[in-house]
Amino acid sequence: MSSTDLFPGAPEHHVTPSVPEPTPEEAGALEDLYANFGRANLIPLWTEIADLMPMVPTPKAVPHVWAWNSLYPLAERAGELVPVGRGGERRAIALANPGLGGTPYATPTLWAAIQYLGGRETAPEHRHSQNAFRFVVEGEGVWTVVNGDPVAMRRGDFLLTPGWNFHGHHNDTDQPMAWIDGLDIPLVHYLDTGFFEYGTERVTDEATPDVSRSERLWAYPGLRPLSGLGRTVNSPIAAYRWEYTDAALRQQLLLEDEGQPATVSQGHAAVRFSNPTTGGDVMPTIRAQFHRLRAGTSTSPLREVGSSVWQVFEGRGEVVLDGVTTAVEKGDLFVVPSWCRWSLNAESEFDLFHFSDAPLVERLHFDRSFAEGDGR
Amino acid sequence: MSSTDLFPGAPEHHVTPSVPEPTPEEAGALEDLYANFGRANLIPLWTEIADLMPMVPTPKAVPHVWAWNSLYPLAERAGELVPVGRGGERRAIALANPGLGGTPYATPTLWAAIQYLGGRETAPEHRHSQNAFRFVVEGEGVWTVVNGDPVAMRRGDFLLTPGWNFHGHHNDTDQPMAWIDGLDIPLVHYLDTGFFEYGTERVTDEATPDVSRSERLWAYPGLRPLSGLGRTVNSPIAAYRWEYTDAALRQQLLLEDEGQPATVSQGHAAVRFSNPTTGGDVMPTIRAQFHRLRAGTSTSPLREVGSSVWQVFEGRGEVVLDGVTTAVEKGDLFVVPSWCRWSLNAESEFDLFHFSDAPLVERLHFDRSFAEGDGR
Amino acid sequence: MSSTDLFPGAPEHHVTPSVPEPTPEEAGALEDLYANFGRANLIPLWTEIADLMPMVPTPKAVPHVWAWNSLYPLAERAGELVPVGRGGERRAIALANPGLGGTPYATPTLWAAIQYLGGRETAPEHRHSQNAFRFVVEGEGVWTVVNGDPVAMRRGDFLLTPGWNFHGHHNDTDQPMAWIDGLDIPLVHYLDTGFFEYGTERVTDEATPDVSRSERLWAYPGLRPLSGLGRTVNSPIAAYRWEYTDAALRQQLLLEDEGQPATVSQGHAAVRFSNPTTGGDVMPTIRAQFHRLRAGTSTSPLREVGSSVWQVFEGRGEVVLDGVTTAVEKGDLFVVPSWCRWSLNAESEFDLFHFSDAPLVERLHFDRSFAEGDGR
Amino acid sequence: MSSTDLFPGAPEHHVTPSVPEPTPEEAGALEDLYANFGRANLIPLWTEIADLMPMVPTPKAVPHVWAWNSLYPLAERAGELVPVGRGGERRAIALANPGLGGTPYATPTLWAAIQYLGGRETAPEHRHSQNAFRFVVEGEGVWTVVNGDPVAMRRGDFLLTPGWNFHGHHNDTDQPMAWIDGLDIPLVHYLDTGFFEYGTERVTDEATPDVSRSERLWAYPGLRPLSGLGRTVNSPIAAYRWEYTDAALRQQLLLEDEGQPATVSQGHAAVRFSNPTTGGDVMPTIRAQFHRLRAGTSTSPLREVGSSVWQVFEGRGEVVLDGVTTAVEKGDLFVVPSWCRWSLNAESEFDLFHFSDAPLVERLHFDRSFAEGDGR
Repeated sequence: MSSTDLFPGAPEHHVTPSVPEPTPEEAGALEDLYANFGRANLIPLWTEIADLMPMVPTPKAVPHVWAWNSLYPLAERAGELVPVGRGGERRAIALANPGLGGTPYATPTLWAAIQYLGGRETAPEHRHSQNAFRFVVEGEGVWTVVNGDPVAMRRGDFLLTPGWNFHGHHNDTDQPMAWIDGLDIPLVHYLDTGFFEYGTERVTDEATPDVSRSERLWAYPGLRPLSGLGRTVNSPIAAYRWEYTDAALRQQLLLEDEGQPATVSQGHAAVRFSNPTTGGDVMPTIRAQFHRLRAGTSTSPLREVGSSVWQVFEGRGEVVLDGVTTAVEKGDLFVVPSWCRWSLNAESEFDLFHFSDAPLVERLHFDRSFAEGDGR
Repeated sequence: MSSTDLFPGAPEHHVTPSVPEPTPEEAGALEDLYANFGRANLIPLWTEIADLMPMVPTPKAVPHVWAWNSLYPLAERAGELVPVGRGGERRAIALANPGLGGTPYATPTLWAAIQYLGGRETAPEHRHSQNAFRFVVEGEGVWTVVNGDPVAMRRGDFLLTPGWNFHGHHNDTDQPMAWIDGLDIPLVHYLDTGFFEYGTERVTDEATPDVSRSERLWAYPGLRPLSGLGRTVNSPIAAYRWEYTDAALRQQLLLEDEGQPATVSQGHAAVRFSNPTTGGDVMPTIRAQFHRLRAGTSTSPLREVGSSVWQVFEGRGEVVLDGVTTAVEKGDLFVVPSWCRWSLNAESEFDLFHFSDAPLVERLHFDRSFAEGDGR
Repeated sequence: MSSTDLFPGAPEHHVTPSVPEPTPEEAGALEDLYANFGRANLIPLWTEIADLMPMVPTPKAVPHVWAWNSLYPLAERAGELVPVGRGGERRAIALANPGLGGTPYATPTLWAAIQYLGGRETAPEHRHSQNAFRFVVEGEGVWTVVNGDPVAMRRGDFLLTPGWNFHGHHNDTDQPMAWIDGLDIPLVHYLDTGFFEYGTERVTDEATPDVSRSERLWAYPGLRPLSGLGRTVNSPIAAYRWEYTDAALRQQLLLEDEGQPATVSQGHAAVRFSNPTTGGDVMPTIRAQFHRLRAGTSTSPLREVGSSVWQVFEGRGEVVLDGVTTAVEKGDLFVVPSWCRWSLNAESEFDLFHFSDAPLVERLHFDRSFAEGDGR
Repeated sequence: MSSTDLFPGAPEHHVTPSVPEPTPEEAGALEDLYANFGRANLIPLWTEIADLMPMVPTPKAVPHVWAWNSLYPLAERAGELVPVGRGGERRAIALANPGLGGTPYATPTLWAAIQYLGGRETAPEHRHSQNAFRFVVEGEGVWTVVNGDPVAMRRGDFLLTPGWNFHGHHNDTDQPMAWIDGLDIPLVHYLDTGFFEYGTERVTDEATPDVSRSERLWAYPGLRPLSGLGRTVNSPIAAYRWEYTDAALRQQLLLEDEGQPATVSQGHAAVRFSNPTTGGDVMPTIRAQFHRLRAGTSTSPLREVGSSVWQVFEGRGEVVLDGVTTAVEKGDLFVVPSWCRWSLNAESEFDLFHFSDAPLVERLHFDRSFAEGDGR
């Protein structure tokens, strides 16, 4: 599909100015001018406008799929060869979008990595401006300690480490564990807004409770402690447990079966992880959601401003990105650049975790989407 | 305590203007003037200011306690003598504050009533601008049907019927059931903002599910359905179940035992019922909270702008209202007028439900409180 | 018009329950029950519902018009007979709505009074929770000193004294001056939220500048001082000057002449006084607006939830309140109770000042209006 | 100053992990692993963390000053050599930060350019997602037409063209005119959020009024038209006129002379251009302010997260950027990268226009600043 489909009658690309061929004299004068521009640290708009201000978003980031079964063995191998500790800080291996010139960025704004922690290992405490979360596609046994609160990590859990909270991880078992880290590292790097500080070598609390203190205080439907009534920038819930996510999705589909409004579209249940003190996103720069498609369901093709990363949690299906269809299964990750046309087809019941830079795009009022009527 | 304690050095009452005694001629002229004022529908400020604009709030509403064991039998007797149905609408019996001149108002802004529904009875559907909730101190067997969604009522549950939602109640058992209704009827009457409309004679859905559709869609910690992402004026959660309230309070006290910040003050756990789409109060005119005091705990005396109603849910203790101490136990209700000095003493573990007009007071920026350092 | 016009097919009043005539025995039992209710400070809903929860708002306040040419001489006479000073505080004479039982209230929420200050007189400083403004229909020579900032009062000016700001007035000339005070006294009295404190006998700054310090800091289009960047509850602009109000209204009509969208309806220009730190109303409880109708313009009949007070500033016309037409001219005041059907007819160019409790109604989400298609 | 001054006792740079020298076998295995990472589009964190997540912001953008007297002649020369019209769209020449690798970006988020329009020339209409403003350091005679509303451009004026508004410029005189364009082009390019659409070749309204329709409707202190009561993303005021900016700054300094709080610090007056419908910034991505320093005033050195661009409007002084002092005068521009230590010294009365990405930084809650107590 071309941009002319989006703006009928509009040119797809910037038009070339119809300027008469310069005389040699004129060409020389122009060459001098441009050289003077360069010396004065100036660049004209008129030669750059097509790249700078395209008719529709034309990201350098490309759609891409990473298979879990190639990703995980490499993380395992890193576990054998690379120690984890102060300086390197984390045994995390980032998805590097092939279009982004060798940077370890999944999209221009989002970092997505597999982090691997061997049995009995500890990733030392530190804090940084960057907002982070963990999502666990399989395994357990690690506690992430956030501001001194040990938070168990288990399959299906979504765990928060908002900016400037000290945090470390320790594996309380003899088995390795791997999970997905999501952060706004590229955005913070781009904006030059990042600070970083070291904490302790070992986690500050090595207890291994089933439930974190954060959850004991905050993780109830619609209840707020009187000791914490303000609006907080980040969600105070450290862990969004799979049992609730699963139940919410299951109930949406059951309600749909009963003819009640509940799903986002036919056969498509979805929840957003939210900050109970505001109803908004869990952190200012990252939105996180969970989707469940019934077997046989396809979503309508959609283009959206902003970029996102998906991970298949369970089931099998296909993702279609700008016309290219790829089969995906448990653990596979893929990125959807801005304005990329995407849709999903569920072969089995199909569960997907999803995070994006939508809060940023919406706060700046750049949000825009385009849903096609047909499946072209 | 006098207002001079609040504003040291300030007069407690308006001063009397030191005006020379009028001559008979002057007195007559003044009398004529006031008569002319009356004829012209005018009233001077200077003769009324002490009543109109007192130095501190001087409510007509008085502190008062209603005993459940005298309240309940009267409701039961009403169940024998008074039918429930269209026109009368509800078998609800309101707390009438002795200071409010025979109006059925617990406080100037709040209505609190015991509602009684006999076995197999139905209270017909209607809707109104007034915001309402139910709180269940004992019993079960009634379903309140809110916008067609049947919501089971059970001990400890807090249930919402925000303004302009059709609702009725039906008792699916042979046993009567009673509960507390809280509404903003006095406020709506005062502001002349109320509309009322009849619905069906029978409830629109007579099913008796354990869990309402609202809860299935909304009652998860921090999860929002993608089909409902806007900010709503009222909480979409129809029922705040006792199991969560109880767990939240219990965990706060356990966290306190562990030396963690969690309670509102030593031995005093408390939660606020909140709207998950905003983090704010469940409805614009009513705040609802639940408190648990450890046995032996006393709260510090406090004066607050705005009025509230409390009901003892479980346990025994005392309430001290403007210096008068009253022993209270399960089911007893009491009102705290604006700026009344109140405190609680817990004999046993002491659970109390509490609602107030605080959202209104805060939205108008009239909120103000005064905590005394000592227990005078 | 009846409520059935608003809800077609709905009963205009609550229906009378069809209960069989009680036997003498039943009647006696009921009488006993009601007596017991009374002794226990209880009142049943079913006997009160029609008054408590009417089908549409049925205010006690009535539409009423006060003529300036009868109001002003009475104020003048009060100037001769009644001193102004500490205790009485202000020589203010309130509009007493004939429906409100002898209270000095224009509407249930709003106070409107004419205040009269003789030559060289001072109204001493005080402060109170009540929010206040002044509007000047004629005259000049008085400075109102708000938190130590002297603010000149001149014809057409709208001047703010938000709650808890010390303020006094002093007349720097030998001529008397009168103006309109608007406050939320009735609301604050009803809610029991009011505090009052005396200040100095004389105003704290007797300077008589043309422009207040507040205006010098704040009264520019779209400019905020970097020394005051927060959101404030009340507007920091002490005086909204007539020259700007007049220019804004004139330009709206000129833009309308040019075919541009600008007026609120054909021939009807209007501005709202706003808080530049939020864009919202000047104070949390009071909205203030200014309207200008071209000669010959009539507004469409409208019903609105909430009450308001109008004063004719210039020109002649009619106000139609629940079907009663009254001719009004410069200085005349009238009140529009909640849900009263109102419209205006302009004989000449017709300027009106208008204030209401709309911010309160909107913050509680009770706002609702009904515009009729025809001019019945 | 080093980062250790900011976090005493903290390392200034990431520490190097103390890992034993790998054996040749280990080194080979590691090399294989990294090669496999590359093939799988993966990059490890531990080798990149120092660059990705520095201890404090370490922008690529550098502090830089552009002199108006070298900038303007180049623009003039472009006026002789380069036509303005469809395709190139604008004769705008951008400040290219020497640290940003040849991109036409003043900072990572901000575009700043001099735009030059010859006598009788027209820059054709178009619209784009990018938010834009104009600031006029000298000259007049051009009207910028925003959504059909012709807006005169004169010295000292700050003019808005928020995203997706059609706009063109036409010079109604025989003299050329130049001004500064500020946009969020780099941000929109980075985020892939930009759309662009052509409009008409000539401006849609060639009238040349002194005052735009936008100003006639909106540019009054604290007054809002009833025909436009919503909150708008962008300010509806098309032009912030110099006469008001100048008066506001002058009054701040006069109030300071009178001992009143008004300036942001001693001798330093400043205003922020704001959106009257919210009190917030004029556009979601750009903050604009105007500063006036008394002769002889120096500001305290400050570091702030986020980047900005300044232009001297009048007077002479110095800017100190990360320890380098540069004399600047009328028209000179300079950029302050994130966390750069900056201060100003005023030789004469010193007026500066200033714009930044602060609204973005604040909306994401990355804002942070560091004011040094001394002048080190």
